Amino acid sequence: MDALLKEITPIVGAANVLTGEDVSARRVDWLTGAPCRAKAIVRPGSTREVAEVMRACHAARQPVVTHGGLTGLVHGTEAGPDELALSLERMTAIEAVDPVSATLTVQAGAALQSVQQAAEAVDLQFALDLGARGSCTIGGNIATNAGGIRVIRYGMMRQQVLGLEAVLADGTVVSSMNRMLKNNAGFDLKQLFIGSEGVLGIVTRAVLHLQPPTPDVQTALVACPSFEHLTGLLGHLGRYLGGSLAAFEAMWQSHYRLLTQESGRHTPPLPPDAPFYVLLESLGSEPQSHGAQFALALERALEDELISDAVIAQSDTQRQSLWAIREDIEGLIQALSPLLTFDVSLPIPEMDRYVTRLEEALTRDWPRGRMVTFGHLGDGNLHISITVGSAEPAARLAVERLVYTPLAELGGSVSAEHGIGLEKRHYLALSRTPEEITLMHTLKRALDPHGLLNRHKVLAPEDG
Amino acid sequence: MDALLKEITPIVGAANVLTGEDVSARRVDWLTGAPCRAKAIVRPGSTREVAEVMRACHAARQPVVTHGGLTGLVHGTEAGPDELALSLERMTAIEAVDPVSATLTVQAGAALQSVQQAAEAVDLQFALDLGARGSCTIGGNIATNAGGIRVIRYGMMRQQVLGLEAVLADGTVVSSMNRMLKNNAGFDLKQLFIGSEGVLGIVTRAVLHLQPPTPDVQTALVACPSFEHLTGLLGHLGRYLGGSLAAFEAMWQSHYRLLTQESGRHTPPLPPDAPFYVLLESLGSEPQSHGAQFALALERALEDELISDAVIAQSDTQRQSLWAIREDIEGLIQALSPLLTFDVSLPIPEMDRYVTRLEEALTRDWPRGRMVTFGHLGDGNLHISITVGSAEPAARLAVERLVYTPLAELGGSVSAEHGIGLEKRHYLALSRTPEEITLMHTLKRALDPHGLLNRHKVLAPEDG
Repeated sequence: MDALLKEITPIVGAANVLTGEDVSARRVDWLTGAPCRAKAIVRPGSTREVAEVMRACHAARQPVVTHGGLTGLVHGTEAGPDELALSLERMTAIEAVDPVSATLTVQAGAALQSVQQAAEAVDLQFALDLGARGSCTIGGNIATNAGGIRVIRYGMMRQQVLGLEAVLADGTVVSSMNRMLKNNAGFDLKQLFIGSEGVLGIVTRAVLHLQPPTPDVQTALVACPSFEHLTGLLGHLGRYLGGSLAAFEAMWQSHYRLLTQESGRHTPPLPPDAPFYVLLESLGSEPQSHGAQFALALERALEDELISDAVIAQSDTQRQSLWAIREDIEGLIQALSPLLTFDVSLPIPEMDRYVTRLEEALTRDWPRGRMVTFGHLGDGNLHISITVGSAEPAARLAVERLVYTPLAELGGSVSAEHGIGLEKRHYLALSRTPEEITLMHTLKRALDPHGLLNRHKVLAPEDG
Repeated sequence: MDALLKEITPIVGAANVLTGEDVSARRVDWLTGAPCRAKAIVRPGSTREVAEVMRACHAARQPVVTHGGLTGLVHGTEAGPDELALSLERMTAIEAVDPVSATLTVQAGAALQSVQQAAEAVDLQFALDLGARGSCTIGGNIATNAGGIRVIRYGMMRQQVLGLEAVLADGTVVSSMNRMLKNNAGFDLKQLFIGSEGVLGIVTRAVLHLQPPTPDVQTALVACPSFEHLTGLLGHLGRYLGGSLAAFEAMWQSHYRLLTQESGRHTPPLPPDAPFYVLLESLGSEPQSHGAQFALALERALEDELISDAVIAQSDTQRQSLWAIREDIEGLIQALSPLLTFDVSLPIPEMDRYVTRLEEALTRDWPRGRMVTFGHLGDGNLHISITVGSAEPAARLAVERLVYTPLAELGGSVSAEHGIGLEKRHYLALSRTPEEITLMHTLKRALDPHGLLNRHKVLAPEDG
């Protein structure tokens, strides 16, 4: 290892090879807060440096873990004491913005928020948005195919990427920096790297697609009398809002009641006795026509009895207080400690029964267990918060089995947007067929035959 | 070969193994009209049959070419006398429609139009649309990542596919029939097969994402005083139409004038003296508000002098007559015979200069040569029609070089939406780096080590 670090040091400069306390002073990630255990942290300043570092590591068969903003939730950036962490924290440049083609070229270490701001500076917007925007990086967003709060309208990170550059395990630079909406010249190689969690290559730069601005934001909280009404409302808003619907965040009563009435953390904007609540947001260009269209769509939903009650935010403050209920993770942690959280997806028509059965199974096995649910319903994505009074591995394992096992039969996924990392790799087979997992291993071997990149993440070694 | 056909016959039934005149009576594709030269055409009726046929072919090292609707434009479905054609014409079932999740499950041989109709039957729509809708198949749309006339709004075929099932060269069935908008459980394998032109696997089934209906269609033809005004108009409509813009079809003056004034085939809706014309289409939910918004956006464009003239279609007949100009391929063939057509993409700000220089180069080399241009401008995609009075291979080759060579420096693509097939594989290196092409070969070898699927298409053997 020392010999390798000596080889790497002149590539990136001595100040950019961290060892000892400089490593352990850093957290492994945002979630756990434990110290980083990597043998060293290397901070290249360019794609060329990444490539040279990887050539040296490849020759030495040195495993490498790529670090972005460390905001992941599935232990996808953990590095053991025999691994090198490669941090893209110095590669934060926004290299170019083309307002005519609506494209932005950026280094992978740039924070999501800096891309959003650069887009706004030319009267456009970057469509991806999520809570960690200030610290998560574009490279991490790409590697994990990030989702967030506007997927119904704009899709996931994959749909925002026009081109990218990646460094393979052997140091080869694959530069696919396409800037056009359409390019069918051969296989679309960027798709390999998007969502593969750093296992197939290190994303170093990207060309992102920007969207026209939608300055008028209409937000409402509505109450729904049943799950059928909830799905009816989703279709209704699709029809009446002409594609401007951006958020359809469904809260089961248990979730809404916990965070408003029970915790006292939020004044309930609507009485907490409806079976379901939905936070709605629509993005339009002009306040007058878009506001009228949004109000009319809700009026019709009331007339059709799809919803029983509604409140439309009349100011940005009101908007924020509605979102604060839906986003109050702190409130969940306080009430449901120790908290186990899950990120699953399944076909929308199956959700209600899935949640009901899971609740039944949970309270059967843990009479004092408790669970609340909300989800990006339009995306088929549920976030489930559970406590059983214990965070012991055995309890967690038992709960994971209750949550994940029914998904296999329903064609659901053990990971909607968080990825697999180390945490869910043993459940991958619930959502993927043996042929799919074999093909994943085939790709891994083809691109990284020595298994150096983000070793043992996504694919457990025993699967091979 | 006879032994192999004997093995295949019981799998698909004797009626579904065509040989001799049954083969040569069929055209190789829509474009050339020459007879099919394949040794046999095999028509499996299910994924299982496709898999069994491929297992037999794999054991016998038999090359196979997959046939869908045969509407491709780059000779991607040509089969030589030593190749077997595998036609999905019997696999046309629409297996399921889920209006709540807005998904449709279909066999790959179904025609695009049948999917559009099945979506409309549940008050939704399928976003992909293109001229060949009646005969092109969903499998072909996926294999070529089809584009079409609504890409600005909905993206290409890739964005409409939630899941798919593919049969590999060895007969392995990779079933990734995901039905959710979000699924980050491991690599997104479907992306491998989308747009890879049948070279990596045979797509047999798919889950498609449906969109809310947009019953109100607003269409206009506008005149633009310069290219800068044209790109200014694109940004303007992005801002004022809140994402409802679906078509921005730019016609250079030469194109508009040829098809209206010169050919006399269409009454010019606007005088033919402007440098550029654009056919605009916006899709909304409600006629009143959407129509007003569209008219207002055009009024403002007139006020800002982004456009010099405009006509809004007042009826479906008027709409169709506007589209008839833009879609009059027959008129181009009559006027520019023998016609050479090109499908390229490049960053929008580079287009004007690219077209001007290409015109100069063309008339320098062929004083009587002629070229007209239109394009899905918002997608960065130009379709260029050229005649030099000859269709001889040498002339075609010389023109191809003029069209394609400048794209390398501009970061453009030799294929925006038609694909590579046999026709463009020798130009692939103009749009892709050596590292990209090497990686494409790596993937091909990993998935189809004997090179049986759509042999020599996309990747020329000498590239390996």
